[in-house]
Amino acid sequence: MPFSFDELTGRAAGLLSAVGVPADDARTTALRLVEADFRGRTGHGLIRLPSYLERLVAGGMKAVPAMRTLHETPVSAQVDADNGLGQVAMTRATELAVAKARESGVAVVGTVRSNHAGAAGLYPAMAAEQGLVGVYFAVANANGMPPWGGVEPILGTNPVAVAIPTADGAPFLLDIATTTASHGTIKVARQAGEQMPVGWVVGADGEPITDPSRADEGFLVPIGGYKGAGLTIAIGLLAGVLNGAAFGRSVVDHRVDLTTPTNTGQLVIAFRADLFRPLEVVLADLTQHLAELRSSTSRDGGPLRLPGDEAARRLAQNLRTGVDPAPAVLAGLDGWAERLGTQRWT
Amino acid sequence: MPFSFDELTGRAAGLLSAVGVPADDARTTALRLVEADFRGRTGHGLIRLPSYLERLVAGGMKAVPAMRTLHETPVSAQVDADNGLGQVAMTRATELAVAKARESGVAVVGTVRSNHAGAAGLYPAMAAEQGLVGVYFAVANANGMPPWGGVEPILGTNPVAVAIPTADGAPFLLDIATTTASHGTIKVARQAGEQMPVGWVVGADGEPITDPSRADEGFLVPIGGYKGAGLTIAIGLLAGVLNGAAFGRSVVDHRVDLTTPTNTGQLVIAFRADLFRPLEVVLADLTQHLAELRSSTSRDGGPLRLPGDEAARRLAQNLRTGVDPAPAVLAGLDGWAERLGTQRWT
Repeated sequence: MPFSFDELTGRAAGLLSAVGVPADDARTTALRLVEADFRGRTGHGLIRLPSYLERLVAGGMKAVPAMRTLHETPVSAQVDADNGLGQVAMTRATELAVAKARESGVAVVGTVRSNHAGAAGLYPAMAAEQGLVGVYFAVANANGMPPWGGVEPILGTNPVAVAIPTADGAPFLLDIATTTASHGTIKVARQAGEQMPVGWVVGADGEPITDPSRADEGFLVPIGGYKGAGLTIAIGLLAGVLNGAAFGRSVVDHRVDLTTPTNTGQLVIAFRADLFRPLEVVLADLTQHLAELRSSTSRDGGPLRLPGDEAARRLAQNLRTGVDPAPAVLAGLDGWAERLGTQRWT
Repeated sequence: MPFSFDELTGRAAGLLSAVGVPADDARTTALRLVEADFRGRTGHGLIRLPSYLERLVAGGMKAVPAMRTLHETPVSAQVDADNGLGQVAMTRATELAVAKARESGVAVVGTVRSNHAGAAGLYPAMAAEQGLVGVYFAVANANGMPPWGGVEPILGTNPVAVAIPTADGAPFLLDIATTTASHGTIKVARQAGEQMPVGWVVGADGEPITDPSRADEGFLVPIGGYKGAGLTIAIGLLAGVLNGAAFGRSVVDHRVDLTTPTNTGQLVIAFRADLFRPLEVVLADLTQHLAELRSSTSRDGGPLRLPGDEAARRLAQNLRTGVDPAPAVLAGLDGWAERLGTQRWT
């Protein structure tokens, strides 16, 4: 029996409420997680909720934080999340950036003392829904990659996401880790019992590791060698160091350390798509250019998919049909439901 | 006999003046080209000047454009370059972005009807010199890569550059094409008579091409597969389509078509590094984090180099010693000197 969007968000919010998260924050977090699942980014969906609950119960994350907006100007602000849920902090940061960019043209909003915020693309997508360009950078919540030429894994998968609105309502939406695979993707492979392809993880000896349960023994591989390794650092400096958040050796591995605050940093930049040309002209041009790329000749004869296309297709389909979370995901959530006395998932 | 910085810029400006470029614009363009050479980015240095001269003489680029600043707000502007030199347009765009960001906190400045502007990193570096973060996106001046899964090369090497200031005056400076190799890098290999490594160019049959003189028969390879291919599109939409500049099939290959205006688009974002914390605290933290990465254990025992380190080292050394341009570069410039009656280079 597939679950509907509302059913999943209600249940996820119920679990968060059961550990003390206020109703609004529980709902916001549940929405972001289930959105990720419905868009097919299952590595950043409900699969993550048990670890959030663990952190909240263990005291590594606050259920009732005193989030504050600091250093506010017409074009910038910082959200001090007070170690609350990352989805709540980033939703607030994005809403601030969108409101300021609509008014001023462009805005930069950072977070500090935040936490893992799930799928990177969700936040710029919120900007694109309002006709704005959104760019998002985050410091990953675990390290696993050395600087280029190094052997100490003191960098993470630091993601970048870019959303650009179009005339047909489906934004261009790029959402990528700067490593060939993210921890979430590896977790999905492990839960599915699948091997990883060569090129995701490399051992200190330079040999590929393909067993996802051994991923932590090796290093994540940056996209484009030194280029991706540099991009990871750039993103970390922008999202972490400007904000006074964790970067490099100060990053807390949220998968193994459940009690130390992660001090996660994120940065969102939003700006009006019509800074240079009338909005309807720009949106029509964007749509036409993307259609040109999609309809160009493909290797296999089928239509080409651009970043965001598959997520939009899955979202539309899943909203009609509901989704079946993976058995391991359901089992994890069911364990928490039993522990917290909320409605069972299976 | 090595050439000094001043000698090279003077000679390069002399050639540009000889084809009608006003003295200030000739000097700005020469500075950007020689800076690239002195930083070791020889693929975007004086090696490019003959093609600029050819375009100017053939009428594909205007020596005396009427550049205008349009759509100006406290946080944004667009430079209509009127088909003038890209270095002149982007220098003006960056100066505008820096001035606005110092005043307002953040600024987004685009270009339209611009041209090839050389090494991407030069422009954000100008922002970092003023204590600002600079991010630069450009649409490449030739296509050579299909959308992911496609076989029509209607995308380019669209570069991104990020400069972040530090306390010690040497910024973090990432400057990358979103393909494993840029046209400039391939041109350097061709002039040097070297083979390209596997992974730079792939034939339509999927086989690697390693002879740089055959590079145009194949496709450039994006960094990280579909991730880099998506990044290329994102950059193209931001730098090209928002601006009303060329993107996709409308890109003019400036290497083979000398007369059609390229309508190149670029975008620079600048923002204050002290939006969230006092500048001296942020700069000290940035410096300390970069030092931590550099001093982490390396594979070969030597110190690690971060993006910008090697360029800064070369710039400092080359300013002391001067540089010896490659013989093929000198020969090309000498041919133009003879043709235009300016001082010979050899």
